[in-house]
Amino acid sequence: MTTRARSLTALSEPEQRRVRLTEAFTAVKIDALIVSSAANIRYLSGFTGSNGLLLVAPGAAVLFTDPRYTTQAAQETDCTVRIVHGPLHPALLQAAARRRLRRLGFEPAGLTWQAWNRINEGLPLNTSLYPAPPLAESMRRIKSASEVEAIRRSVITNSKAFERASRKIAPGITEAALAAAIEHQMRLLGAEKPAFDTIVASGPHTALPHAVPRDVAVRPKQLVLVDMGCFQAAYASDMTRMAFTGTPPPRVRRLYKAVLEAQLAACDAVRAGVQAGTVDRAARRVLRGYGYERLFIHSTGHGLGLEIHEPPRIGRRDPSVLQAGMVITIEPGAYIEGYGGIRIEDTILVTETGCEILTPTSKDLLTVP
Amino acid sequence: MTTRARSLTALSEPEQRRVRLTEAFTAVKIDALIVSSAANIRYLSGFTGSNGLLLVAPGAAVLFTDPRYTTQAAQETDCTVRIVHGPLHPALLQAAARRRLRRLGFEPAGLTWQAWNRINEGLPLNTSLYPAPPLAESMRRIKSASEVEAIRRSVITNSKAFERASRKIAPGITEAALAAAIEHQMRLLGAEKPAFDTIVASGPHTALPHAVPRDVAVRPKQLVLVDMGCFQAAYASDMTRMAFTGTPPPRVRRLYKAVLEAQLAACDAVRAGVQAGTVDRAARRVLRGYGYERLFIHSTGHGLGLEIHEPPRIGRRDPSVLQAGMVITIEPGAYIEGYGGIRIEDTILVTETGCEILTPTSKDLLTVP
Repeated sequence: MTTRARSLTALSEPEQRRVRLTEAFTAVKIDALIVSSAANIRYLSGFTGSNGLLLVAPGAAVLFTDPRYTTQAAQETDCTVRIVHGPLHPALLQAAARRRLRRLGFEPAGLTWQAWNRINEGLPLNTSLYPAPPLAESMRRIKSASEVEAIRRSVITNSKAFERASRKIAPGITEAALAAAIEHQMRLLGAEKPAFDTIVASGPHTALPHAVPRDVAVRPKQLVLVDMGCFQAAYASDMTRMAFTGTPPPRVRRLYKAVLEAQLAACDAVRAGVQAGTVDRAARRVLRGYGYERLFIHSTGHGLGLEIHEPPRIGRRDPSVLQAGMVITIEPGAYIEGYGGIRIEDTILVTETGCEILTPTSKDLLTVP
Repeated sequence: MTTRARSLTALSEPEQRRVRLTEAFTAVKIDALIVSSAANIRYLSGFTGSNGLLLVAPGAAVLFTDPRYTTQAAQETDCTVRIVHGPLHPALLQAAARRRLRRLGFEPAGLTWQAWNRINEGLPLNTSLYPAPPLAESMRRIKSASEVEAIRRSVITNSKAFERASRKIAPGITEAALAAAIEHQMRLLGAEKPAFDTIVASGPHTALPHAVPRDVAVRPKQLVLVDMGCFQAAYASDMTRMAFTGTPPPRVRRLYKAVLEAQLAACDAVRAGVQAGTVDRAARRVLRGYGYERLFIHSTGHGLGLEIHEPPRIGRRDPSVLQAGMVITIEPGAYIEGYGGIRIEDTILVTETGCEILTPTSKDLLTVP
């Protein structure tokens, strides 16, 4: 794994990331990092299996996995691969000891207490374990050009799947059948899987922000909410759109207008250098003008990438400062229990001068006869 | 939450479980348990949201969640519900302090080190935190009659989805399109979602136990492996079947015969009172007779229920003793790198006298012209 003879740009993208990661080790006083979160393992090694531990030190990266992944690991990663029968952490600790890595960082949010305890109890003499700051997560906030391209493809697939499946929105289709059609189209268009449980809700159920699709048919003169996302080439997309089966009554039209204005205001507020809280408050201010502020019961958005929820959170008091290359959702909503709810959501790219709205789908309320 | 006036059978199933759970508290020296794993929260409260903490003490159960789930929590659980803005654990610790619960157990496998650390740092005076044994997980090993019925429905949906989608297995269909068809059928038949990433592999890729479906078309004279499961009413199913596009050559026929005999031998070995390792070794013994033992690179099976992988593991040296009411998979395989692999998997119910094979799908090698 020597990198001395090559320039940084000649390295694979995962290897470039590992070099950048290890540059932070001195400041946080660790010799190596035990990477246990699946998304970070993928980001830093390319490996996609369900069972793995990655040990990263300056000039060395060793991936530990089990025999089911022998062939796959060899194909996916340029790290050294160790195939382990049984628990992975004893092999990792041995490798660390052989390399005289004494101060081992771990991922506090990527390790269960139990896994941490097992590693801790197996530590060799003179070796200690430290909770590391979220180094890989911080790097992952800013997407590289290839990551933005992957998200762009995922977003386009997601919008195409909505376009195809939304033709089925009509009185009579069940929420579950519509969700099934959406997920089928995602896959046919090249997605690996939904990025989260697809939400399809109709009528009063649209007031539940995380509604589960039911075997209940959409009826005439109802709101329909679709919140969908997919993983394609490992990267997430996320979008919410609304439909109405019939001519929307004034109350729905006003609610929709308010949420759409809030969504546009939040997008307008996005720019590198702006605090996340400022974006959230831009959406809330619009809803307040309509008397709807109390109906907006969640935050305005979140980062996404290899995971569907990543930092930064776009919440009321979030101090994170937006940076060019961040990809976030903007998704204000307004929910009236027993009546219904509206949410409109895009996936957007933060730029120096504002933002690029990646989601190509129209934000008009889709009305079906 | 007083239960004194009612008999145990008049209680809801989650409440019965909480009563049984709290009966174990004295022996493990805790006053209350902080339940953080999603499957355990569902098992003990009925709540299905993505963000929750459950505090269970004798005669009290309080579910903490955020405003997105106000309506849903009220519908799903008979626990006391506290809607919390922001992090849930400070509210939980306050509730514990008010009730003078001093010795708080936590789930070592259900809490990240970070979440544990935050709870630990917020502990009131005179209160301490202890890693609890897997009390809920132990209860979940033995399925109740209603749980067995739920798994049975999930298994039947899964087999029906295979029956419908497997008609598409033929040269020309891509692995990804077949996986899409399978998952679409699952949903149309009432499943919430796949229980894991559906595996469809063809040709030499069948040698990868956890292959990811590719945009690669199935060709004539190839093995096709399908490993699929769904969640229906929250309960998992799991099945693997094989097809061959053409007349299988002798090598495939012999490999298939060996794995099928191993699968049947393992099923035959299942009975309440038998060690899991005995079942695993029954499969390995058959493969050894064919000279294939080294091709079987994973364990014979695993429990399933609210999660796709639950204890017990059916592995070589597993000391767990099978008990009536356990639901497990039996899935031996043989994999030849560069050539292909065979796996045959059923979901089965352990009984006093043997087992009931829940999976109704034929175990013949499916040959398609």
